[in-house]
Amino acid sequence: MHFVTVATADLDAARRFYVDGLGWDPTLDVPGEIIFFQIGPGMMLGLFDAEQFATDLGPGDLGTAHLGAAAPADATPRGFTLSHNVASPQEVDRVLAAAAAAGAAIRKPGQPASFGGYHGHFADPNGLLWEIAHNPTWSITPTNQVLLGPSDPQQLG
Amino acid sequence: MHFVTVATADLDAARRFYVDGLGWDPTLDVPGEIIFFQIGPGMMLGLFDAEQFATDLGPGDLGTAHLGAAAPADATPRGFTLSHNVASPQEVDRVLAAAAAAGAAIRKPGQPASFGGYHGHFADPNGLLWEIAHNPTWSITPTNQVLLGPSDPQQLG
Repeated sequence: MHFVTVATADLDAARRFYVDGLGWDPTLDVPGEIIFFQIGPGMMLGLFDAEQFATDLGPGDLGTAHLGAAAPADATPRGFTLSHNVASPQEVDRVLAAAAAAGAAIRKPGQPASFGGYHGHFADPNGLLWEIAHNPTWSITPTNQVLLGPSDPQQLG
Repeated sequence: MHFVTVATADLDAARRFYVDGLGWDPTLDVPGEIIFFQIGPGMMLGLFDAEQFATDLGPGDLGTAHLGAAAPADATPRGFTLSHNVASPQEVDRVLAAAAAAGAAIRKPGQPASFGGYHGHFADPNGLLWEIAHNPTWSITPTNQVLLGPSDPQQLG
């Protein structure tokens, strides 16, 4: 997987949040159309103007056919989160605080997580949900293989 | 970014599609709860039972507050796509055909894309949208830096 593309109602608000607020450096910024950030090895986040996102997909239900006439004309992101893992519970709280200072809405303050670690969620100005997590049973090998479960050097072969 | 977690109404349908249909190998499969696949360097896709996804986020609007009473109780994925880039237009068509054979709904048949390449979209059995793309102006350096724009060895420094 190489891109996550997210329908973005207000690109200017997104730019203020990620670039001015969090200090991210866009790979490409086409005002009124799309802003790309590299958010992982070989992996881009594309914040795509919501109307152009819908146009690009063409006629279809955008997953809202079950709402019938109540289906919204927009394409608000829903039903997914992007997660960023950090090294400690304290860093979870620091990142959440930095996001809030930049204008994010805290959806779930830092707290113990069902997976055994610590996490919290914020929504960016366009409703995109981020989880900030400390997961002590998650790790990445030097070859970028993800391990889930208790850390065990034997798993590295 | 380390995880994309997607609300999944029918985990069994997801398993049939990705594992039985496409032959993907789950990193972790907890029936009734979540299925993880590694989909990039250090990057996981988590298909998370939709009710547990909503419970994990806690009370909130899931991005649907603007719908008022029409807000759906579920958390159908909406407003984003995951993109997989391949080496040629022919490979786009092959991947779309394989997805359709495994039970995907083709949302946009393979066709020239506004970005100058060739692409198409399918929806998995739970409504998660994938774009399969050939983008001749996209590349990844040996250190996993993404380049957007005409290929130019000078950009590699």
